[in-house]
Amino acid sequence: MNATNKPLSVEGMAGAPLIITKHSKTFWRVTLDNPPINLMGPDMISGLQRLMDIIETDQYLKVIVFDSADKDFFVSHFDVLRGAEVPVVSGKLGVQQWVDVSNRLHNIGVISIASIRGRVRGIGSEFILACDMRFASREKAIFGHLEVGMGLLPGGGAAEYLPLLSGYARALEIAVSADDYSADTAELYGWINRAFADTELDHFVNNLADRISGFELPALRVTKATMLKRAGGGPNPYEIQESTDQFFELYQRPEAQSLLARLMTMGFQEASDTELRLGHYLGTLAKSESN
Amino acid sequence: MNATNKPLSVEGMAGAPLIITKHSKTFWRVTLDNPPINLMGPDMISGLQRLMDIIETDQYLKVIVFDSADKDFFVSHFDVLRGAEVPVVSGKLGVQQWVDVSNRLHNIGVISIASIRGRVRGIGSEFILACDMRFASREKAIFGHLEVGMGLLPGGGAAEYLPLLSGYARALEIAVSADDYSADTAELYGWINRAFADTELDHFVNNLADRISGFELPALRVTKATMLKRAGGGPNPYEIQESTDQFFELYQRPEAQSLLARLMTMGFQEASDTELRLGHYLGTLAKSESN
Amino acid sequence: MNATNKPLSVEGMAGAPLIITKHSKTFWRVTLDNPPINLMGPDMISGLQRLMDIIETDQYLKVIVFDSADKDFFVSHFDVLRGAEVPVVSGKLGVQQWVDVSNRLHNIGVISIASIRGRVRGIGSEFILACDMRFASREKAIFGHLEVGMGLLPGGGAAEYLPLLSGYARALEIAVSADDYSADTAELYGWINRAFADTELDHFVNNLADRISGFELPALRVTKATMLKRAGGGPNPYEIQESTDQFFELYQRPEAQSLLARLMTMGFQEASDTELRLGHYLGTLAKSESN
Repeated sequence: MNATNKPLSVEGMAGAPLIITKHSKTFWRVTLDNPPINLMGPDMISGLQRLMDIIETDQYLKVIVFDSADKDFFVSHFDVLRGAEVPVVSGKLGVQQWVDVSNRLHNIGVISIASIRGRVRGIGSEFILACDMRFASREKAIFGHLEVGMGLLPGGGAAEYLPLLSGYARALEIAVSADDYSADTAELYGWINRAFADTELDHFVNNLADRISGFELPALRVTKATMLKRAGGGPNPYEIQESTDQFFELYQRPEAQSLLARLMTMGFQEASDTELRLGHYLGTLAKSESN
Repeated sequence: MNATNKPLSVEGMAGAPLIITKHSKTFWRVTLDNPPINLMGPDMISGLQRLMDIIETDQYLKVIVFDSADKDFFVSHFDVLRGAEVPVVSGKLGVQQWVDVSNRLHNIGVISIASIRGRVRGIGSEFILACDMRFASREKAIFGHLEVGMGLLPGGGAAEYLPLLSGYARALEIAVSADDYSADTAELYGWINRAFADTELDHFVNNLADRISGFELPALRVTKATMLKRAGGGPNPYEIQESTDQFFELYQRPEAQSLLARLMTMGFQEASDTELRLGHYLGTLAKSESN
Repeated sequence: MNATNKPLSVEGMAGAPLIITKHSKTFWRVTLDNPPINLMGPDMISGLQRLMDIIETDQYLKVIVFDSADKDFFVSHFDVLRGAEVPVVSGKLGVQQWVDVSNRLHNIGVISIASIRGRVRGIGSEFILACDMRFASREKAIFGHLEVGMGLLPGGGAAEYLPLLSGYARALEIAVSADDYSADTAELYGWINRAFADTELDHFVNNLADRISGFELPALRVTKATMLKRAGGGPNPYEIQESTDQFFELYQRPEAQSLLARLMTMGFQEASDTELRLGHYLGTLAKSESN
């Protein structure tokens, strides 16, 4: 079962930028692989929804690690150019497809671990927040909710998950600063469980997943269900839906469209320095807007 | 708009120890300036209430930074000698005037940032807790809720805001230790968002306020309102009123009056070593009381 | 009253592995002393319940420090061989005896402080979590909830107290990793208030308890009651009972019995390397189970 041994299988998911590595029947790894900057678009979201279908019925799976094939981008952000392709009524709850993924991932019996290198912003942060736990490279992980800098709202989970982990003051700071944060600060703020030296991250995460995959399934299931219940049950999916709706309402405003149009001329959604240092560039836009 | 440029205006508020610097239409600074030790007395409280009247109706203001004109005292504490001058029924809710200020500051659409150097104790801590976020000088900020050491309760907001940020265990420790805490510990406890080297604090806070002041007002307003709602809506003002009432009930006890009388002979409420090292001196009083 | 002076009395509690040191009428110390590894068994639990009877009616006591006579084990864990001896209906609420102790300790007016050296696992962690605050030796304290590694649930308080202090993500990690944690990580996670250098721990805790013991009793009582109320009232004892029941249900499973039987052959519940490095050994069991 060890993560360093030869896996049972490594397969791309049909039609989705996801690679599924089965280290054993009880421990899977899902690698996000959507070049060039790991945008979270409709294909990745629908692929994650199909993954939920699979793991909700699997009888053996205990733990799943999510990582990225791109060393610079765990997930850059939502693919705003293809936003309209994401189904707005989906899953048993009839919510937007991303909201369905977020809610199911958080509530499923399988333990989910995000192992983070590179930038993780917007919906990428909302993806790791829906996981049970998050570990990151101290040197190579960068975190941001930059929506406000584009005239938008961190909708789709951030407003729901982040205050539970960071408290209101730090969650609001993250949202209204619309800036990039280091792994050190993310750890201090509870955005992630812990940061590790880049050379130690994989060892830690693999060892943790190996341990969990060797424990008794009923003990894991009862423990997660009880902890989640005691912690208030996790975010309400209809509240995530509500903030998702607010995101799209702000997105319709001409001021937001204008900001996004300017960002597009600067290399937004492409492999560019703008995407690498997006927090910095949003600050320059903000200054020019207000002068 | 940059905080280092010449501001639009710098004016003292009539009848209140507050200096209002308008860096731009969207970014103001309010400096607490009540020599010799920045006591929070009736004039400062009524001035802050009038400030709430102003900023609640302003159409442009996005962000406000609160700082102090006194390098040793951000706010020393409540002016206990003039406590009776604070209106007990005030504002739309009909609560004590300070409770009205605290509640409105926390719920207003404007983003509020406390930038802290020097001592901030008692109602001073309750003032920064009512702000949206707090940053402090790692070397020069000192935090305390010393009320219990005077036979009193940290009423007026601490019991309501602090457990949300620090958790019950650390909030209770802060309250019953009645001692001074470093910025490092305040950061660990979530009492502040982050501590910065004294030489970096102003740059960080000004840059953050500059960024926010350049972002879209609707995005900021919706984000704060949604985050606050998701975080449970913030403290209930009637609970802050209740703990304020408990404060004044304990204040009437002869034992509290006796402790305050002894503190007065030691330089309490004056520029004194007692005020500089109040946590230490309360410990000596406690020892003498119990022997 | 000083903790370094000659105490008023030092007495073992009849029939219980507890030593009660009265430093003064207002400051007591209770030392856990159950050789060879400070198991929490029926005698310690019933002793703690009798302690609750005593301190609930004492008119003077303000603060109580809990520490351990064993440098390696603050509390190793529950004595699983004598679990059936713990009354399942006890106290005014008619809950399991341990649940009664936990609930009363947390809600009593007396301020309780755990001063931690050595290992504190399972019910030991649940004991310190029921205290008001926790301080630990940075070098010598080790924390763990290892129940899941034995096919069990961290029932009896961990699921209730830990998410309030650590947040869901870190609480779940602690539970499903079933591994040992350093004092540094326990501090980061809010599991303890703070870690101190081993040479400084006693000075800090004694000074804090001395201060508190010299403050006004009504101020302490009102402050704790108000803080606890504002923090949501603390865990519901019937929820602690529910997770305790879940623990015993999982304990009946043959798989859990098999794991415990194997642990017994390895030196479980004895002075052994297995107990010293229990997190490590559970990992080896997990690997052998899943291969």
